[in-house]
Amino acid sequence: MTKENSVQVNVLGLGAMGTALAEALVDAGHPTTVWNRTPGKADGLVARGATAAATAGDAVRGGRLVIACLLDHASVHEVLDPLAGEMAGSTLINLTTTSPAQARELAAWAADAGIAYLSGGIMAVPHMIGKPGSSILYSGSADVFRQYEPLLGLWGTSTYFGEDAGLASLYDLALLSGMYVMFAGFVHGAAMVAPAGVTAREFASMAAPWLSAMTGELEGYATVIDGGDYTVEGQQSLEFSDLGHILDASSEQGVSTEVIGMVQRLIRRQIDAGHGKEGFPRIIESIR
Amino acid sequence: MTKENSVQVNVLGLGAMGTALAEALVDAGHPTTVWNRTPGKADGLVARGATAAATAGDAVRGGRLVIACLLDHASVHEVLDPLAGEMAGSTLINLTTTSPAQARELAAWAADAGIAYLSGGIMAVPHMIGKPGSSILYSGSADVFRQYEPLLGLWGTSTYFGEDAGLASLYDLALLSGMYVMFAGFVHGAAMVAPAGVTAREFASMAAPWLSAMTGELEGYATVIDGGDYTVEGQQSLEFSDLGHILDASSEQGVSTEVIGMVQRLIRRQIDAGHGKEGFPRIIESIR
Ligand SMILES: NC(=O)c1ccc[n+]([C@@H]2O[C@H](COP(=O)([O-])OP(=O)(O)OC[C@H]3O[C@@H](n4cnc5c(N)ncnc54)[C@H](OP(=O)(O)O)[C@@H]3O)[C@@H](O)[C@H]2O)c1
Ligand SMILES: NC(=O)c1ccc[n+]([C@@H]2O[C@H](COP(=O)([O-])OP(=O)(O)OC[C@H]3O[C@@H](n4cnc5c(N)ncnc54)[C@H](OP(=O)(O)O)[C@@H]3O)[C@@H](O)[C@H]2O)c1
Repeated sequence: MTKENSVQVNVLGLGAMGTALAEALVDAGHPTTVWNRTPGKADGLVARGATAAATAGDAVRGGRLVIACLLDHASVHEVLDPLAGEMAGSTLINLTTTSPAQARELAAWAADAGIAYLSGGIMAVPHMIGKPGSSILYSGSADVFRQYEPLLGLWGTSTYFGEDAGLASLYDLALLSGMYVMFAGFVHGAAMVAPAGVTAREFASMAAPWLSAMTGELEGYATVIDGGDYTVEGQQSLEFSDLGHILDASSEQGVSTEVIGMVQRLIRRQIDAGHGKEGFPRIIESIR
Repeated sequence: MTKENSVQVNVLGLGAMGTALAEALVDAGHPTTVWNRTPGKADGLVARGATAAATAGDAVRGGRLVIACLLDHASVHEVLDPLAGEMAGSTLINLTTTSPAQARELAAWAADAGIAYLSGGIMAVPHMIGKPGSSILYSGSADVFRQYEPLLGLWGTSTYFGEDAGLASLYDLALLSGMYVMFAGFVHGAAMVAPAGVTAREFASMAAPWLSAMTGELEGYATVIDGGDYTVEGQQSLEFSDLGHILDASSEQGVSTEVIGMVQRLIRRQIDAGHGKEGFPRIIESIR
């Protein structure tokens, strides 16, 4: 990073994630001012080359780009509301997790205060920041995204979804849904094999590559969903996917059928509605 | 495949999967006799070099190794019960999908008839057979597995789990559970973003690499589960994983909360039992 394209950045919030974000900025040579509500958390960053601000006000007065990574939506308002006047004309990139509605509310708040606003959803854990696999989703001001794209790239792959500030959060929550549900499926499988003396680690060593390979099916399912015609040839039918044998085996193993039974209900609802010969991706019609 | 280690194989069942298995054998130079209940399905294989048998009896009399890939457990008995006497001393590798209990029943039937028995669960679709990513799980006779390992390797990666003939099927169903549940999580996410104008394909292009990357977390969860101590440091707590924001956003988007609500119930049951500060993998205790 040469002096010409280095940017003064102010980071508010030095939890696990804010610290990781600030470290990447400092290490790339950006003059970085950091602030945290509870003092002491800046020490490591100061040793690395950051400047600590005593108050959030001191921090935002240090430059025109403010990165917020606080606990939640309420904490962002608590910290920034008193500073709205001073921040007019500056840029806020908020990486605090919020709901889509909260992101839109903050965008409106920023617009009222004359602050350019970009909302981000971090698809990574702190130790992944700046490493392969780290991905951050953005929406809100396209100008802000374009202007700071090289800086955002220090944290991971950046994807911009559009001017609606709620989109990044919506995407974030949709991807997290997929993840949490996948984890529930994993524990169900691990619970099934456990009574046969298979450890969860042994099962994980099979399940991780298997599930990873099966993500290869998602594009095909998505194509059918987008096409809206669930009768296209070559698909596994809903009838074929009844899952009765999996529920039976789960019960035989003493495992609750609540996880896999959820999927069976989505399938059965479509079969009961007369769509049994259609393709498996039709289960999306059971939930929307 | 040299003449010395080529093996005479008899394949019963030429559905989509049986055909793919037989093709790999023929292409590798094994003398292969094939049979299907409904005639005509052998034509392509005969053109490739296989021999067609008019009856299942003719097929099993052709050699000592029989591969069955029929519809289900009942169809295996229907085809093989009349041939039990003639098959004494030969080997049966059954790749028909069965439940663990059915696999054990077939193993007992085979033992009574003096037939060496190996049970297989195919973790692949027909076009993957013999290609990277194809994996077949085996259990039953270790001798059969060892003897025919090079031949089994023609179809994909072979993993042997032990003498209990039901194990491969149990593993198979546990992995399929994980897959079906993951697919349900994917459609939930796709349904969430759809009202914002995001196509399922756009969502899949983000979700596939994301879910694939997140399978990297499974080993860590498994280690905690095997350790039995959910209080180990550095974990995301159950309280932190409440999922309330995901349920709210799902409802805002007009999507049923039934998929993600299932995961929240597993989490809440542990929190309600006083384990909220413990790690997320503790959700397995909600189902076993
Ligand atoms: N960690 C992850 O894996 C991860 C992944 C994706 C997204 N995120 C998101 O990133 C954000 C930060 O996460 P984190 O892991 O850094 O959390 P954390 O370690 O718990 O840190 C929370 C931060 O918020 C500050 N804070 C809380 N309430 C405040 C208030 N009312 N006023 C001022 N500051 C307040 C805390 O300051 P004190 O030190 O004074 O308490 C601390 O700096 C969250 O929205 C989180 O959802 C985290
Ligand atoms: N396809 C996959 O993606 C896949 C993946 C993993 C495992 N499997 C398993 O592999 C096995 C075969 O699947 P497939 O895809 O090949 O199915 P398929 O295309 O439907 O073929 C079924 C086969 O079973 C035969 N069959 C059915 N009932 C019979 C009976 N009573 N007596 C004799 N033959 C009978 C059929 O013969 P006819 O031609 O006379 O009807 C046909 O050859 C199943 O157990 C399946 O679960 C398949």
